[in-house]
Amino acid sequence: MSRVVRPRIRTLAGYTPGEQPAADSRLVKLNTNENPYPASPAVARAVEESITRLHLYPEPLSDGLRRGAAERYGVRPEAVFVGNGSDEILALCFKACAGPGDRVAYAVPTYSLYRTLADLAECHVVEAAARDGEVPTAIVDADARITFLCTPNSPLGYEIPLDQVRRVAAASRGLVVVDEAYVDFGGTTALPLLEELDNLLVLRTLSKSYSLAGARIGLAFARPELIAELCKVKDSYNVSRLAQAAGTAALADSGWMEANVTRVRLTRERVRDELIRLGFAVPPSAANFLWVECGPSGGEAVYRSLRERGVLVRFFDTPGLRSGVRVTVGSDEDMDRFLQAITTARP
Amino acid sequence: MSRVVRPRIRTLAGYTPGEQPAADSRLVKLNTNENPYPASPAVARAVEESITRLHLYPEPLSDGLRRGAAERYGVRPEAVFVGNGSDEILALCFKACAGPGDRVAYAVPTYSLYRTLADLAECHVVEAAARDGEVPTAIVDADARITFLCTPNSPLGYEIPLDQVRRVAAASRGLVVVDEAYVDFGGTTALPLLEELDNLLVLRTLSKSYSLAGARIGLAFARPELIAELCKVKDSYNVSRLAQAAGTAALADSGWMEANVTRVRLTRERVRDELIRLGFAVPPSAANFLWVECGPSGGEAVYRSLRERGVLVRFFDTPGLRSGVRVTVGSDEDMDRFLQAITTARP
Repeated sequence: MSRVVRPRIRTLAGYTPGEQPAADSRLVKLNTNENPYPASPAVARAVEESITRLHLYPEPLSDGLRRGAAERYGVRPEAVFVGNGSDEILALCFKACAGPGDRVAYAVPTYSLYRTLADLAECHVVEAAARDGEVPTAIVDADARITFLCTPNSPLGYEIPLDQVRRVAAASRGLVVVDEAYVDFGGTTALPLLEELDNLLVLRTLSKSYSLAGARIGLAFARPELIAELCKVKDSYNVSRLAQAAGTAALADSGWMEANVTRVRLTRERVRDELIRLGFAVPPSAANFLWVECGPSGGEAVYRSLRERGVLVRFFDTPGLRSGVRVTVGSDEDMDRFLQAITTARP
Repeated sequence: MSRVVRPRIRTLAGYTPGEQPAADSRLVKLNTNENPYPASPAVARAVEESITRLHLYPEPLSDGLRRGAAERYGVRPEAVFVGNGSDEILALCFKACAGPGDRVAYAVPTYSLYRTLADLAECHVVEAAARDGEVPTAIVDADARITFLCTPNSPLGYEIPLDQVRRVAAASRGLVVVDEAYVDFGGTTALPLLEELDNLLVLRTLSKSYSLAGARIGLAFARPELIAELCKVKDSYNVSRLAQAAGTAALADSGWMEANVTRVRLTRERVRDELIRLGFAVPPSAANFLWVECGPSGGEAVYRSLRERGVLVRFFDTPGLRSGVRVTVGSDEDMDRFLQAITTARP
């Protein structure tokens, strides 16, 4: 432990990302909600072209990608922020909007990074349990500086209806972040609400539906005056030329993404039906994963047993989540291996 | 101005990066210390190969690049941190080591981002003037949580001798960041001091000597226990697969970098001699830029006049820097255009 580090940081655990097996691993990787299909071939061409100017700094505000995203989503470029993954944008929301002692609120279970970032920023956390899209009153009434709505929710897969988003934002004097990391797989976007609500920030990532987890590209949509404040607190050159090129090309070929999403959704429903047939409780999912309730013996036993059979899923050792596992929807081939493994693995 | 943003952030100006002209601009770009020569061809090959796995998250700690950097610099992998540019690492140093009201110290003029980040973190700034490598006593004695030593210094180009680094670190109970962004162009590295000093962090970037400004790759070297704390406060996947591949390939072909550095240094000395012959005061530089004193009419007039002639250099509108301009050392052809322009532009 280094004496130069702040005492509060020393005591923090930090965020634990899902396991990333080595490139030569033969595990079926269903633990971090990656897309099993590759990104548009246009991405490779754009990245290769960008290499020729790699000795020069990138555009500080990712202007080209910003314009591409604005066109794709029907907003002004000034209403778009480009980040080094949506994780960077979440961290910047704290930097801009919530400091020590400020309240942040969200329903649990949800993406655990909200809690990690809140602890880092020394915020006071208001959590309340939810298993569906009805936002708990304790969250609506928290008067938080930041309220997070993860829709579709990870890890449970439910969607938060727009009237709930509107209800939360209308009741809040702070920022409301609608984290739509998985929305392309089946949710309804809150983007149209930006016109009526000035405290909304809609967060997207190209990691999931656009198959670009390795490129680190997040997008935020909000009123231009809020985007301008985020630009102040970001690193000057937060997104590389390579990522800007990749993101611009991917958004310009959204048909490719949509075709992959369609395949993932078909696979998701097939696997869900099969799991239910096997006797598991599996709530409907609007995302690219399924929440699988594993019965009284719990998720950890299933996680371990699947891992022994070469299939990696996600077990969360946290309250409310120990009874199941989250399973990313991979290719049909991968999911057949998963189904075979869980059939023999089940307690 | 958005009501959801913290009042302190609203009043901040943010960092102003150097102008990035459009790709089709015909300006000779000598304003942000980029390398005029391209990165190793091995970089392009490695990046292209990495595209095939872009749908998967990158290694959270950039393991491959970490090992490559450890080998190149003769340290253990655990003593290396990989960041999304050295700017991200500077921001993380604040996150880990300095909070509201804490002192941070550095001699001025220097890289202005230190001040921007200190203001963001609500730190108390101790500044003292220096025009050479003798660190002012006010900085040594500041008892700061972070002390920055930029060596070679930007924008003046002087080097801070290792005995000065040792003196500062020995006197400090906080972190001492030795920012060696330009060290490959002529400075002496403080890396060997890591063995004797546990509060040192040596910061490197692949943006300058390795011609990778567009890829965003920074490296920090420090004791493993300090590196572990930085890992806690970073975003989980802070460096893309593309950047990890680019950085690993670049470090493995350091001969390519060294050849480019040799060319830049030869050009630097030729241009410096010529400027002195023209009557400018130009202090010796250990970096890939020259500080050009412009006489009583000041740097702004020269900056404007050069820009009219198609040459972009850096003018800093801050105390102590208004009398000159910083000129990046570009290719011989670019510098001939610069010399021609300044000959006709001089007041």
